[in-house]
Amino acid sequence: MIEHVIERWHQYMRGELEGGLDELLDDDVVFYSPIVYTPQAGKAITKLYLQAAGATLPGDEPSSATPDGRDSRFRYTKEVPAGDTAVLEFETTVDGKYVNGVDIIRCNDAGRIVEFRVMIRPLQAVNIVHQQMKSMLETLQEQS
Amino acid sequence: MIEHVIERWHQYMRGELEGGLDELLDDDVVFYSPIVYTPQAGKAITKLYLQAAGATLPGDEPSSATPDGRDSRFRYTKEVPAGDTAVLEFETTVDGKYVNGVDIIRCNDAGRIVEFRVMIRPLQAVNIVHQQMKSMLETLQEQS
Repeated sequence: MIEHVIERWHQYMRGELEGGLDELLDDDVVFYSPIVYTPQAGKAITKLYLQAAGATLPGDEPSSATPDGRDSRFRYTKEVPAGDTAVLEFETTVDGKYVNGVDIIRCNDAGRIVEFRVMIRPLQAVNIVHQQMKSMLETLQEQS
Repeated sequence: MIEHVIERWHQYMRGELEGGLDELLDDDVVFYSPIVYTPQAGKAITKLYLQAAGATLPGDEPSSATPDGRDSRFRYTKEVPAGDTAVLEFETTVDGKYVNGVDIIRCNDAGRIVEFRVMIRPLQAVNIVHQQMKSMLETLQEQS
């Protein structure tokens, strides 16, 4: 089941999933932020966080490379699915800083995501994402 | 293969693996710290980091519980193995602060660990582990 959910998650990331996050997320999904201690419960707040993350983490200039030649855009580097859970590891660049992280995604029997947990490393990435997510969430909340 | 490696990792964590980390780690293993950007290459430095982590993360008083009733000791909460990689999610408490993290473990065909990557959340956990790991690494390096 989780393999199919992850396939649809990738479709969503490419902007190709009809229905988008509404289609993917269970009403009772819980989002665990890399920054905030308190779990964020429910579809509305989880959508807000995932949209903020999507706007923060796409990476720097699509055509640019980091000084060590690494691609600076968001990309998944590992996909580890087992049972009802998958862990997707990613790399990206925010404001010139290297960000390495994981999305931990758990689904229910209906194929909806019930848990979405994000962690990032190293320390400089945590700090830059903290700043950027904060201002992005404020912008999104003002718009809504 | 990874299932067998993880079984032996748990044996090591319980102090029951003859040979310990020397048995588990490949000579060319690379450790990726939750704090430090630079990958740490080689068995010696990886052992040092894993020993520092083991001394930092075991959790507060074995018998105590956090205010919300959660167990405060180190424990794995998810195990996601696929192919040559497993992701183990954990929870623990350091100086009264809740720490949630992952060990991402990749092995080679010989069943030795070639990559060990750690990420933690939330922000307060990153900060407390940063402080504690720093002083623990200094202590271990003075001893060696």
